Amino acid sequence: MEVMSDRLRCAVLGATGLVGQRFCQLLSGHPMFEEPDLYGSERSENERLRDRLKLADRPVSGDLLEKEIKRLDTDVVIREHYDAVFSALPTEVAGQVESRLRNGGVTVFTNASPHRMDPDVPLVVPEVNPEHLRLASNRGSIIANGNCSTIGLVLTLAPLVRFGIERVSVVTMQALSGAGYPGVPSLDALSNIVPYIKNEEEKLRAEPRKMLGRLKSGAIEPWDVEVSPFCTRVPVREGHFEVVEVTFREEQDLPEIVSSMEGFRGLPQEKRLPTAPERPIIVRNEPDRPQPVLDVDAGSPDRARGMAVTVGRLSYGGRRLRYSLLVHNTIRGAAGAAVLLAETYFSGGF
Amino acid sequence: MEVMSDRLRCAVLGATGLVGQRFCQLLSGHPMFEEPDLYGSERSENERLRDRLKLADRPVSGDLLEKEIKRLDTDVVIREHYDAVFSALPTEVAGQVESRLRNGGVTVFTNASPHRMDPDVPLVVPEVNPEHLRLASNRGSIIANGNCSTIGLVLTLAPLVRFGIERVSVVTMQALSGAGYPGVPSLDALSNIVPYIKNEEEKLRAEPRKMLGRLKSGAIEPWDVEVSPFCTRVPVREGHFEVVEVTFREEQDLPEIVSSMEGFRGLPQEKRLPTAPERPIIVRNEPDRPQPVLDVDAGSPDRARGMAVTVGRLSYGGRRLRYSLLVHNTIRGAAGAAVLLAETYFSGGF
Amino acid sequence: MEVMSDRLRCAVLGATGLVGQRFCQLLSGHPMFEEPDLYGSERSENERLRDRLKLADRPVSGDLLEKEIKRLDTDVVIREHYDAVFSALPTEVAGQVESRLRNGGVTVFTNASPHRMDPDVPLVVPEVNPEHLRLASNRGSIIANGNCSTIGLVLTLAPLVRFGIERVSVVTMQALSGAGYPGVPSLDALSNIVPYIKNEEEKLRAEPRKMLGRLKSGAIEPWDVEVSPFCTRVPVREGHFEVVEVTFREEQDLPEIVSSMEGFRGLPQEKRLPTAPERPIIVRNEPDRPQPVLDVDAGSPDRARGMAVTVGRLSYGGRRLRYSLLVHNTIRGAAGAAVLLAETYFSGGF
Amino acid sequence: MEVMSDRLRCAVLGATGLVGQRFCQLLSGHPMFEEPDLYGSERSENERLRDRLKLADRPVSGDLLEKEIKRLDTDVVIREHYDAVFSALPTEVAGQVESRLRNGGVTVFTNASPHRMDPDVPLVVPEVNPEHLRLASNRGSIIANGNCSTIGLVLTLAPLVRFGIERVSVVTMQALSGAGYPGVPSLDALSNIVPYIKNEEEKLRAEPRKMLGRLKSGAIEPWDVEVSPFCTRVPVREGHFEVVEVTFREEQDLPEIVSSMEGFRGLPQEKRLPTAPERPIIVRNEPDRPQPVLDVDAGSPDRARGMAVTVGRLSYGGRRLRYSLLVHNTIRGAAGAAVLLAETYFSGGF
Repeated sequence: MEVMSDRLRCAVLGATGLVGQRFCQLLSGHPMFEEPDLYGSERSENERLRDRLKLADRPVSGDLLEKEIKRLDTDVVIREHYDAVFSALPTEVAGQVESRLRNGGVTVFTNASPHRMDPDVPLVVPEVNPEHLRLASNRGSIIANGNCSTIGLVLTLAPLVRFGIERVSVVTMQALSGAGYPGVPSLDALSNIVPYIKNEEEKLRAEPRKMLGRLKSGAIEPWDVEVSPFCTRVPVREGHFEVVEVTFREEQDLPEIVSSMEGFRGLPQEKRLPTAPERPIIVRNEPDRPQPVLDVDAGSPDRARGMAVTVGRLSYGGRRLRYSLLVHNTIRGAAGAAVLLAETYFSGGF
Repeated sequence: MEVMSDRLRCAVLGATGLVGQRFCQLLSGHPMFEEPDLYGSERSENERLRDRLKLADRPVSGDLLEKEIKRLDTDVVIREHYDAVFSALPTEVAGQVESRLRNGGVTVFTNASPHRMDPDVPLVVPEVNPEHLRLASNRGSIIANGNCSTIGLVLTLAPLVRFGIERVSVVTMQALSGAGYPGVPSLDALSNIVPYIKNEEEKLRAEPRKMLGRLKSGAIEPWDVEVSPFCTRVPVREGHFEVVEVTFREEQDLPEIVSSMEGFRGLPQEKRLPTAPERPIIVRNEPDRPQPVLDVDAGSPDRARGMAVTVGRLSYGGRRLRYSLLVHNTIRGAAGAAVLLAETYFSGGF
Repeated sequence: MEVMSDRLRCAVLGATGLVGQRFCQLLSGHPMFEEPDLYGSERSENERLRDRLKLADRPVSGDLLEKEIKRLDTDVVIREHYDAVFSALPTEVAGQVESRLRNGGVTVFTNASPHRMDPDVPLVVPEVNPEHLRLASNRGSIIANGNCSTIGLVLTLAPLVRFGIERVSVVTMQALSGAGYPGVPSLDALSNIVPYIKNEEEKLRAEPRKMLGRLKSGAIEPWDVEVSPFCTRVPVREGHFEVVEVTFREEQDLPEIVSSMEGFRGLPQEKRLPTAPERPIIVRNEPDRPQPVLDVDAGSPDRARGMAVTVGRLSYGGRRLRYSLLVHNTIRGAAGAAVLLAETYFSGGF
Repeated sequence: MEVMSDRLRCAVLGATGLVGQRFCQLLSGHPMFEEPDLYGSERSENERLRDRLKLADRPVSGDLLEKEIKRLDTDVVIREHYDAVFSALPTEVAGQVESRLRNGGVTVFTNASPHRMDPDVPLVVPEVNPEHLRLASNRGSIIANGNCSTIGLVLTLAPLVRFGIERVSVVTMQALSGAGYPGVPSLDALSNIVPYIKNEEEKLRAEPRKMLGRLKSGAIEPWDVEVSPFCTRVPVREGHFEVVEVTFREEQDLPEIVSSMEGFRGLPQEKRLPTAPERPIIVRNEPDRPQPVLDVDAGSPDRARGMAVTVGRLSYGGRRLRYSLLVHNTIRGAAGAAVLLAETYFSGGF
């Protein structure tokens, strides 16, 4: 990546939520972006980021910690002419706010779900389908990353698509942080499994079809493969674990599959973007890996910690590939996804 | 206890909360009370208890499970002329609702805190100060049990009072269920300690002074000893653990203290009330007891499970007694406390 | 079941382990069996059961709690001429000890795995394949229950077999108690998933083939269907959760499948055996059930708590049935399985 | 600190244990020390550090990850003439091994307990009693850090000593990592408190007397104040939480106490040692801090993360000061303590 003499101006909407805080961590000291302005709800108006921080695992610069949170007003945001606005807004408000911003000419990188399936909204994993970014307009657009579980799945499916996939079945064990804050009550979480996450399976069914679809004359032709999900919540702080079964149309060779996954690289790696992990997929051979505690922060260099997906227990038989994966749900699956998306967008070449 | 030919009619207010559900468990098949009528908020109106149950560790009769929850209306409750009304109402509404019921002639046994320190409200641990029940009027009254942590503490202090206590210091490690449902967010609970529980230390300071006070000419003269508490929340489902340091005014003999605790009995034991544990205080000699997982349900017979407080690691030196205790916070510290209180009240003899 | 005037004499081997303690709970006050004699390793010799108890969720009679644990000596056990010996021995010693006992004429009901796949050892879920008990000899035999995860799976597959199963895929989330004591280190368990359990998938692949096989001229013809498992350990105290995908050879009708599961009964239900749940499979319609905390103890009457398997989220499409199940791994999946097996064996009629 | 042109040669003994791994993290890329050689038991011989790593929260250099672990042989270690040897050996072997090394002329910085109370072994918290390092001989010596709970306590007591302390009472809630690996069985840890840690209270009673003692004519005159501890284990991964009550001999002024704590600095801060936190004690005013999840890694600059102790809820009344503290038990309470000790030793000026 060429050094940028002038860093881009940006803002984080919903800065006090869990994903908003991740945005702050990832944009703190970022080589392409200035420290973001922070917008939140009435409740957090005039508070400093420092007062609301619930995450302590990555440093945030002193300047950013002291920044006051402004009350979100779309007119104000539009008038600021930010280069990029990162949205960590809750679902209930994201739809309308993001539409208004787009209409006001703003480029919104959003982790929220309401616009993901809109035909003119690119839904992108930067290593997988950066060319979908061409859907975005220079005069205001919404650019979306996918659902946290979807991103981990799609990143590992991308190198497999060329082998001819017939069907995908996935069982997820999702971390508590995926429900945000306050999220899951502790009495439901402690020593328990909640075998249902509202709207989650719908997203896992729909989003891969768009992400792995083909851009044809300005529209996306969906990937025509059924994804069959079963989603659960487990007492893990951070890191979605997924057990995947891929059925191919024809017999395959396991070593070839493994080297496809290990060798997988995309545009962000090519451009050496700041938040891009050197290896998007890390394949482990130990039978007891990946584990959330040990692998959730996989990814190097330092700014890309949590951006690599770890894959384990690859096995094959009878046209079926089985593996497990671990994705850092609030980094690669949320804030980090949107930041890498913005880096990709502003670096061009897609 | 003599067999009661006619069981008393009763109701549970706030039946869908965690303590409300404990009331249902404890009143199911109760020899003195009929299955209770259930009252809740608008949200649970017309739902059956079965649909709201979040506790599965004690059986509830099929009849009670199928009972519909009625919307709480104080006029309706008053007109029903229940013998006993058990209140598991949230603090915000308990104060006013309970006052209205009392004024309407109802006898309310409450786990809620707003009226606990009212001069005309008996605040009673049945083994400790049953004579305070004389404060209650036949024409409507509120009868309160104490805070969950207070009850465990006061029950173990009761046999020590006669040795002459100068000061009490207590550090609590309180279970998640104490915060009700949804209560503590799982991200605050998992692998963490929250070293503060709002209003809890105030209760631990004030309530023992009333409970251990003397009834004199219709008023309670407070026990004049400072209780100095520090309260924390720990990732334990059920069972408050407390480390207590009691300073005596004079030197004492440890074996005598131990046998005072072990031998402690009260009116409920004398009357063999249904929910009374044979031994209110169980002293363990193993260094690693009590533990929540192993001792939370201490107490026999079966209907008194969770009603005994377990004490461990008694040590003495320099006028100071140290021990730990475990109290089942939603049984002995809440619903069971109120049920035993009602049993005591209706059995008389205090 | 007719009342038995004379209860059977029995013993528990490995009485101090987690499964051994479950045996003690389940045999305490049992209508068919006397309180068991207890055998353990050198370490626990002469200790009382009370001193070793790590489980407090079910009562054990005072007599049994005070019983001394004897050091296991096969000659002594043989000379005692017990009607039934329950083995909760660790894998390393179970194979040899159980062989010796069988050769000495003892009837061993074992939860241990070494002999499960022996051709002359019946591997039985009493509701599913009681006729395999005919393999047992009157002059000494080993009768085995299956692996904890297998039992839950096979019990729910049994009513589906007649629809014609082509393939079974299962992802397990297994409780910590399944690893016994000390078992999983807490640093591996807390807020983590361990995606591998040694030898577990092998058992899940092999055992259903034997259990669902047909007894033909004194040998078992295996069920010829592939079971494809992926096993993980999650931070749950008790209750194995499994996500199952069954592929049928032909299209099926979901309501018919549901009523097959709900209506499923076996010999233990017919004979009303003490530990038999009225309904072996409980189907829940709520999307967020079963959950370990709420459903692990499913099963009535009281003695059958933890013996019912709870099934949820049944969905069907394209010859594929998806559902989740929860099985109490140390009751229905271990000690309860063996006790029900013994009840079935001694009641006859298989 | 002046830049050191030549870094010191060092080794870690017991490199594969939890504290050994912390040593590796803290010595990786250290400005004063070369990457350490690694010694372990027979079991880990010839394995690489990478294969044994159970900690992923701090980076370790690639070179160090690839280093082979050598089998510990004291003769070999002596012959290597290391400048510093860091011992994370288990208690059972540490005593003898460390004596041999000292007799062989080695300077051992140890986290192990056997030699801590030896009269010729300095037991040092670098900010508190660096002058005790004068006890160390140039021709071989053992230099010890204290027990994990003691260090947190003593660091916060140090600025209070001058006010005249009469008595100290402390209740600890200690993290699972303090028991090492495998350590506490998960069934004892999950949703539980274990109210006893073997030998821990003895250490908390004895060590502060030595650390806060005065060096007089080559011997330490103990601090003559009683420390009264009660230690428990709680389900927290990392971070010991302690509730402290300090009784002064005379009335004190709280603001003065607070500023004493906040302003506390020692030799490591003066010398700006690499692992020294700018502020050894961080006082928080929010009622719900410190919390393990939020504050365990307190300390800056980056190399000093986890080296600051966080204090909260300071309150005062009747000659008694109450506060809570959080100390990172395997960093400030173990490996970080020894590394800062070595930095202090080699920088001189004590």
